[in-house]
Amino acid sequence: MALAITIDDVRAAAARIQGIAHRTPVFTSRTFNARTGVEAFFKCENFQLGGAFKARGGLNAVLAIPEADRARGVVAFSSGNHAQAVAIAARHCDIAATIVMPDDAPAAKVEATKGYGARVVIYDRMKEDRAAIGRRIAEETGATLVPPFDHPHVMAGQGTVALELLDEVPDLDALVVCMSGGGLMAGCAVVAKALRPSIRIFGVEPESGNDIYLSFRAGQRVKIAPPQTIADGLRAETPGELTFPVIHALAEDIVLVTEDEIRAAMKFVLLRMKMVAEPSGAVATAAVLHGKVPKGLGRVGIVVSGGNVDYYMLCSL
Amino acid sequence: MALAITIDDVRAAAARIQGIAHRTPVFTSRTFNARTGVEAFFKCENFQLGGAFKARGGLNAVLAIPEADRARGVVAFSSGNHAQAVAIAARHCDIAATIVMPDDAPAAKVEATKGYGARVVIYDRMKEDRAAIGRRIAEETGATLVPPFDHPHVMAGQGTVALELLDEVPDLDALVVCMSGGGLMAGCAVVAKALRPSIRIFGVEPESGNDIYLSFRAGQRVKIAPPQTIADGLRAETPGELTFPVIHALAEDIVLVTEDEIRAAMKFVLLRMKMVAEPSGAVATAAVLHGKVPKGLGRVGIVVSGGNVDYYMLCSL
Repeated sequence: MALAITIDDVRAAAARIQGIAHRTPVFTSRTFNARTGVEAFFKCENFQLGGAFKARGGLNAVLAIPEADRARGVVAFSSGNHAQAVAIAARHCDIAATIVMPDDAPAAKVEATKGYGARVVIYDRMKEDRAAIGRRIAEETGATLVPPFDHPHVMAGQGTVALELLDEVPDLDALVVCMSGGGLMAGCAVVAKALRPSIRIFGVEPESGNDIYLSFRAGQRVKIAPPQTIADGLRAETPGELTFPVIHALAEDIVLVTEDEIRAAMKFVLLRMKMVAEPSGAVATAAVLHGKVPKGLGRVGIVVSGGNVDYYMLCSL
Repeated sequence: MALAITIDDVRAAAARIQGIAHRTPVFTSRTFNARTGVEAFFKCENFQLGGAFKARGGLNAVLAIPEADRARGVVAFSSGNHAQAVAIAARHCDIAATIVMPDDAPAAKVEATKGYGARVVIYDRMKEDRAAIGRRIAEETGATLVPPFDHPHVMAGQGTVALELLDEVPDLDALVVCMSGGGLMAGCAVVAKALRPSIRIFGVEPESGNDIYLSFRAGQRVKIAPPQTIADGLRAETPGELTFPVIHALAEDIVLVTEDEIRAAMKFVLLRMKMVAEPSGAVATAAVLHGKVPKGLGRVGIVVSGGNVDYYMLCSL
């Protein structure tokens, strides 16, 4: 079966979002390397527009909306970073945005989304289905729905993370990426395998948000109960219809990290690398720091996916 | 009177430390610009080797030690970042390092200095004279003394910060730099004025560490009581003999920030820019954020000088 996107889609996304999304820096840490035995290259999407990689997919999807449809606006559902990404992209294109957010989304993310000029609709994450709410708003208003991960334009946009990383460090031996719905991983995996077929790809989830871990082992999409994890960006209950086949085809393995391992990774990144990673953003780092990936991986790309975190959370590590 | 260094000294330093010190990234923040009315370019020395710009001066000074003198080692006195810088440089050159540190230096800085292989000698900052202790050790052991700021090689090394910043953003209208002994400021001012004579240069100190502010107004070096400020890197009591004439000749003004303004700037940098600045590192940002420099400066370079901070301090903002 053909995968949902190719590297050409990612290259087209890169051209579309160029000059709007940031080309984020790649950092190294001697202390991290000494502690883990790998040579790590951190792609710092916490410094991305809106504080997370999501701006890439959001921009690519919104910029691809035909002129005739733009006046009716866009709608998105998200626990936070995708919300901000679509709000930023909509503002950039001068399009009205409605964002459906869960009632337990971090206050910082809700405020930031409103700050970008979007209308925010809050729902009960334990009772209501955000996708259904999003679809209803789209039907009622004619707005274009920009899903958080399961869409070729969104996946292709996220893939630009790996395009930039491999442009800067072409000889990576492995790539470690966090996963919620799998959009970032799917986009990055397509790029990495196209540019460097020998690369080993590992996906990482929090233990309680192990939908892709279970699906990967079952060979088909599994749905789990709403995850309870501090990694608020990784609470998808099932992988995407489009993302899962890509991950299943290209990843070597999916590994899990505990809440304490996520906290320790956040603290390492904060104090040793001098940067803020949100819990989701520290998950891939946690996997390498705590030996969840095979030993001796060599030159490893690690995606720090975002940095949107409340001060209270940052000080509770 | 000729100033202690020229841009040629800084260019020589850049060549000497290339490939050892990091070329740090320059960040921007739309939120910061919207709030302040300037277009800011943050030179992020918190991502420098050792977590602060000091690695530049330390490396330049240690690399310049003649081969014949290296076996007797180096000695330095410092509240922290210069200590780490000299320790890093000494390790790089395989030279023994002795570092004299005050008893109230942050534990993280003492540990990091020891971690780089240096011998640490603690003194009472309120009672003893660190320079005298450093000189005594140098005399007894024959080690080369690497002073924290008042030395042409140290000043020239720190100037590479401005050399890189102006290489990346050549059309800066102003430059804002924190000051303790004035080594960073002196090096940067020499570079900035040589490359862009119209640039306006502002130095920033904490209110209680206002030795250069007072000296600038008096037209001569003034000594103050030991400063009490959270900006532990900015506790010099008097500007350098070599740095002060440079600052007096090239800076437009020296401005002061309060402890609360420093804390607010640290929090802004942490939550909005996703990076850790130590109190000293946030002082220049604080001056622009709180309107201590003239309005309408245009394109402003701001040096974030370091990121070495305890977790406890970071969570007390």
